[in-house]
Amino acid sequence: MRAVDLIQKKRDGKELTTEEISWLISNYAQGHVPDYQMSALAMAIYFQGMSVNEIRDLTMSMVKTGEEIDLSSLVGIKTDKHSTGGVGDKVTLILAPLVASFDVPVAKMSGRGLGHTGGTLDKLESIKGYQIDRSQEEFIQQVKDIGVSVIGQSDQLVKADKLLYALRDVTATVDIIPLIASSVMSKKIAAGADSILLDVTVGDGAFMKNEADAEVLSRTMVDLGKEVGRKTVAVMTNMSQPLGRAVGNRLEVLEALDIMKGQGREDVTHFICELAQIMLELAGREESLETVREHLVNGQALKKFEEMVAYQGGDLEDLYRPSQAAFITEVRAEQEGYITALPALEFGLIAMRLGAGRAVKTDQLDYEAGLVFEKKVGDYVNVGDLVLTIYSNRVVEETVLQDCQKNITIGSEQKIPKEILKVIT
Amino acid sequence: MRAVDLIQKKRDGKELTTEEISWLISNYAQGHVPDYQMSALAMAIYFQGMSVNEIRDLTMSMVKTGEEIDLSSLVGIKTDKHSTGGVGDKVTLILAPLVASFDVPVAKMSGRGLGHTGGTLDKLESIKGYQIDRSQEEFIQQVKDIGVSVIGQSDQLVKADKLLYALRDVTATVDIIPLIASSVMSKKIAAGADSILLDVTVGDGAFMKNEADAEVLSRTMVDLGKEVGRKTVAVMTNMSQPLGRAVGNRLEVLEALDIMKGQGREDVTHFICELAQIMLELAGREESLETVREHLVNGQALKKFEEMVAYQGGDLEDLYRPSQAAFITEVRAEQEGYITALPALEFGLIAMRLGAGRAVKTDQLDYEAGLVFEKKVGDYVNVGDLVLTIYSNRVVEETVLQDCQKNITIGSEQKIPKEILKVIT
Repeated sequence: MRAVDLIQKKRDGKELTTEEISWLISNYAQGHVPDYQMSALAMAIYFQGMSVNEIRDLTMSMVKTGEEIDLSSLVGIKTDKHSTGGVGDKVTLILAPLVASFDVPVAKMSGRGLGHTGGTLDKLESIKGYQIDRSQEEFIQQVKDIGVSVIGQSDQLVKADKLLYALRDVTATVDIIPLIASSVMSKKIAAGADSILLDVTVGDGAFMKNEADAEVLSRTMVDLGKEVGRKTVAVMTNMSQPLGRAVGNRLEVLEALDIMKGQGREDVTHFICELAQIMLELAGREESLETVREHLVNGQALKKFEEMVAYQGGDLEDLYRPSQAAFITEVRAEQEGYITALPALEFGLIAMRLGAGRAVKTDQLDYEAGLVFEKKVGDYVNVGDLVLTIYSNRVVEETVLQDCQKNITIGSEQKIPKEILKVIT
Repeated sequence: MRAVDLIQKKRDGKELTTEEISWLISNYAQGHVPDYQMSALAMAIYFQGMSVNEIRDLTMSMVKTGEEIDLSSLVGIKTDKHSTGGVGDKVTLILAPLVASFDVPVAKMSGRGLGHTGGTLDKLESIKGYQIDRSQEEFIQQVKDIGVSVIGQSDQLVKADKLLYALRDVTATVDIIPLIASSVMSKKIAAGADSILLDVTVGDGAFMKNEADAEVLSRTMVDLGKEVGRKTVAVMTNMSQPLGRAVGNRLEVLEALDIMKGQGREDVTHFICELAQIMLELAGREESLETVREHLVNGQALKKFEEMVAYQGGDLEDLYRPSQAAFITEVRAEQEGYITALPALEFGLIAMRLGAGRAVKTDQLDYEAGLVFEKKVGDYVNVGDLVLTIYSNRVVEETVLQDCQKNITIGSEQKIPKEILKVIT
């Protein structure tokens, strides 16, 4: 087989066979097929797409290029969860212990943030001492002992994905649904869970900018999960404004604690209960929303979270410490009315400039920096009301203040955004 | 500027600016833009095409990545000629000295053959002693002294083309008209001639398989030549069967000598006279076809050819030596009728298998090997008539004989192929 012939076949709109895709991906992972052929292929896929069979073959070929986690020694239906990324997305911090509080094992590997989007690992590492590197054995033992663990993704999983992801990033081949689907799903499949909840974010702060694209991606991943024997549900969620109140690592941990004390905003609290209900259902557990909320606000989820933090070396005293940012700056409403927009992308980028996110992979994070919103879209403000607070360890530049102010849109009509747009099963 | 943004711009169907293209090509030639970005861009160009302005900018940016030959010290309008490649294409061997015999300077750089197509350099090197490596000064001095020189293309010309051509070959991005046009024309422009005759071959043995594509390529190159101030004419020529009688290096030199002695086939003789007339016109010389033919058959072109061979170190005695192939095998007609097809691609590949061509660049050639046709499409044969002779230094395998026989199509209707399909000015 020659890679050039397979590129041409795809370029000409023909379907690649299982053997062809398997040959290509395994040789790419081993360095025998060079980047310049894979990038040409990725661009051909941008224009010609991939069939359901091709996406399945690509995904399973990618899984085979690395280790696969064996969770079979854990009792029960193991569930996993993945978000396609957002701004202020602290869902995993809450969802994992909440589901685990129902004695459903949650063994989850998470990633880091890049650009305007945050990553669960960074948020957990803002807790002093929290260890995200764990061997497979330690990881499984922890889930056996306390029912929950959130660690960093092993370097040994899906090697082809690491190579391909880095390549797509520099060749304008990121926004290709078959490649996004196979990247996400190959990692979830290799991570070993029986069922997968996909949080597909939609909006200017998300990877998918509109509902139509998000639905195609959701459908593609759900079908793919079924094809390979993993129960999969995709929830399309709104990422047109930051999720909840906080954007920034330490600040989001603090908000997660508030939510698990029953002191979070109602919208995000309700949203997480709905996700937890679906995740429990995937694990074969029918629970009412009321029961789920009970676990969330009565301290059971919080207790599980503290157990996890302690098990992974985190300092429980440091956990509750407020942000130590040196500069606290308030941004207040300049007119009266309903907030109608707080674009997630813009505020994600502002938080990144404050040090809460990375412009490039090698950037150092400032865990204490970020934004906390007092008001969200749909809330009413009077002139001078506090809309958001900026936490920073550098003097806040005038342009940051201007950008915050510019991106707070206030109007006369109240729009209350939906958190869940659609559930794809 | 970032290459990824330019790839995305092209992918999304937008036009790249002069500055963007210039930045990209100059950085690619210097190794700052990697192959994996250029191959993704090439694939995006496959799907989105390029505007006239983009093709001009690409071509001129490529020219700037290497040396440019300065022919200004030569008197008169310098003409150059390029063929997009074919089987049995010995045109340059004859056309260059024929045009030079009219005191029009011909300073030509040629290339090698690959796959089923031959290359002028290889044919010239089949002459004992012929030197194809000449410095720019020697090259120009020779044209001053005798009016004609055919040498190998300098490694210092259009560096970006060498890189891009090799990359396209392995990424299924060869058959893209804007990239073919800029590859051909950048080399012709860098080679310094004032006017350019393009022989755009069409048919199964050519790069362009059909007239429609060939016409688009021809029009693109002619317009491009005009854009940059080089008088350019494209002649679309038939490459559905091998050109003339011989396919193979030494065999084609011998056929060229026959033609220059007035002993060639009438079709190829006439064809070359027509090309010479156009090339002379490009140099500002109006000559009748009769005068051109006179120069070709009365020994003036041959004299010029011998002068060139001698000047470049070639052995004039060896020049007239017949092929020394060890095995001479005849292929005879198995039925009676008119020959209706002798597919150029198939016979080009057969000649390659005999050693007359290269499957890969590093293959060693057997100059003596090849095919000589006694009959061509449109000729009548009786059962047992000699159609072609195989020259080989290896025992001719049964499959080669079968493939020859299989590719001789004989029918009841006489079809006389046109040599020149269209002239694009």
